[in-house]
Amino acid sequence: MKIKSKEPVLFVNSDVCKNNIKRFTKKANENNVVFRPHFKTHQNNQIAEIFKENGVNKICVSSVQMAEKFSKTGFQDILIAFSFNALQNEDYNKLSKKVNLGLTIENSEHIDLINYKSDIYIKVDCSYNRTGIDVNNHKLILGIVNKINQNKKLSFKGFLSHFGDTYHAKSKNEIISIYNNAIDKLQKLKRKIPEAIISIGDTPSLSIVENLSNVDEIRPGNFVYNDLMQYELGSCNKNKIASLVSCPVVAKHKSRNEIVIYGGAVHLSKEHLKIDGKNVFGKIVLLDKGFNMDFMEGTYVKSLSQEHGIIKTTDEVFDKIIIGECVGVVEVHSCLTANLLQDNTVVL
Amino acid sequence: MKIKSKEPVLFVNSDVCKNNIKRFTKKANENNVVFRPHFKTHQNNQIAEIFKENGVNKICVSSVQMAEKFSKTGFQDILIAFSFNALQNEDYNKLSKKVNLGLTIENSEHIDLINYKSDIYIKVDCSYNRTGIDVNNHKLILGIVNKINQNKKLSFKGFLSHFGDTYHAKSKNEIISIYNNAIDKLQKLKRKIPEAIISIGDTPSLSIVENLSNVDEIRPGNFVYNDLMQYELGSCNKNKIASLVSCPVVAKHKSRNEIVIYGGAVHLSKEHLKIDGKNVFGKIVLLDKGFNMDFMEGTYVKSLSQEHGIIKTTDEVFDKIIIGECVGVVEVHSCLTANLLQDNTVVL
Repeated sequence: MKIKSKEPVLFVNSDVCKNNIKRFTKKANENNVVFRPHFKTHQNNQIAEIFKENGVNKICVSSVQMAEKFSKTGFQDILIAFSFNALQNEDYNKLSKKVNLGLTIENSEHIDLINYKSDIYIKVDCSYNRTGIDVNNHKLILGIVNKINQNKKLSFKGFLSHFGDTYHAKSKNEIISIYNNAIDKLQKLKRKIPEAIISIGDTPSLSIVENLSNVDEIRPGNFVYNDLMQYELGSCNKNKIASLVSCPVVAKHKSRNEIVIYGGAVHLSKEHLKIDGKNVFGKIVLLDKGFNMDFMEGTYVKSLSQEHGIIKTTDEVFDKIIIGECVGVVEVHSCLTANLLQDNTVVL
Repeated sequence: MKIKSKEPVLFVNSDVCKNNIKRFTKKANENNVVFRPHFKTHQNNQIAEIFKENGVNKICVSSVQMAEKFSKTGFQDILIAFSFNALQNEDYNKLSKKVNLGLTIENSEHIDLINYKSDIYIKVDCSYNRTGIDVNNHKLILGIVNKINQNKKLSFKGFLSHFGDTYHAKSKNEIISIYNNAIDKLQKLKRKIPEAIISIGDTPSLSIVENLSNVDEIRPGNFVYNDLMQYELGSCNKNKIASLVSCPVVAKHKSRNEIVIYGGAVHLSKEHLKIDGKNVFGKIVLLDKGFNMDFMEGTYVKSLSQEHGIIKTTDEVFDKIIIGECVGVVEVHSCLTANLLQDNTVVL
């Protein structure tokens, strides 16, 4: 079935999506770890239903808004995997009345602010250096655990980490190495508090590593759609990419083999990759035979302004792209694109 | 008045905004050119009212959706300054029944599709190379003008160009030079069809160039808020920046002088500048005395993930930024940030 849309629309192939979800569910089950997928990637009720059908009832989100959204669709166990924001304490309080709420703490003073029932994870930093307490700072961490345990409304769950540095890795081996180093540090910490769980997050390492015997909970998000970034990292093959953006073709410029699409930064986001020395904002597929990942050779989105995208292509491909039809843009980072196209998403 | 918000919120200083609008209105009047501001930057009804108060009744937008929005708030003359998208022909048709609709054409075949009343602009490319017919290709352009004139429903208006290459200029002189070169080419074209108007668009050149005697219509958008990019280009000073994003501070890391805010790519966009060799996703102001543009020295947003922003700072500034308070992020590109925060905008 040909794909066409009058505006940029995110098309999701539900078969691919289901396979991605099944594969991770199976991996989690086989490793006997809790599967708590991150819903920030899709933020979509139809995709949430697929997770439910696979038995998922614990989820992870990155904002109060998302927690509220998915609490309404029946999820009763929601972890906000974003550092405690004191300015939203009232919102957390309200949420805790509705669901089994998990909060992420990295500052001991914040514990004094929490006077409602909640599960507490301590955010630790293994090497990514985005945020979290240094995983090696056992003294500080144990002090916070003690403080949590003194508050009867709080239930200390364990240590939460996101190995986001895997997104910048240059090879699968580097991803595995980041993972192993981080797990070693987390295990050393866990030896001090054996009841604590280890909850980890990133799609690249969780796609590649098979043996998860040293963790208790996984929180990948990006895997549900995957994207060009995951493909380039080697954490998925083309058959595991579940989404693309259908963009109307509005102009062609033969003199420079460039094609203009309706599809810009407000649809795709300005996330880009460096591939062979070039900035790439997406790769291109033809849509006359429907959803596919047959990237057109030598053809990519080279720049984006607010609503325009510029495709660079070759003599051969140029004639195959037709004004008034749509091309598919395989987005660089599905989390950002799906967020922008939340209200323009079609699940096939 | 201290500025604070529990989530990332775009705050707009209406005084600055009014001054920006008044300044451009005056410039247009003094130069006897039509002022048709681009509403893609703000997309906001309150800001639209300020334009109305300044006598603006012709506007420019970049999507059907925006045209529909502003037709509902009483604008009766709307130009869609985005290349004709054949897949939205029905939408254009409906719009043409409600407002005096302007369309942007760069392909002669599209004229056959337009069977409803509309003003037609021909999109020409002066040197930006994003899209449009080469301004020097007089033969092709004159052929299209003839075709437009044969269709009684269509009213040929003139030539529309956007000198977007000014955004990549390294100096004010380079901006002026891009402008002058483009105007020369447009004037040569106009000599063939004197009744055609010249409509041009970009904020950098229209902020810097004072004498607009060779154009008929200006369509700047970005100037209404300005932003860090305009500031760095030299097309505005700090007093002309009308917006910033209030972001809650959630964590601090003294060992590396980094501060974590709730404010990520889904709020600010991933647009960034290279300043002194560093990627800068925004500059930082303190908000305890309200809206201001006193950039904190050595302090900037160094990276963004979906919801997190990481501020790099100095020993001196580190202690001034407090967890549980908000900092102001002066965004790189207000068009993209305002689009993301459309539903989280406060006009002060």
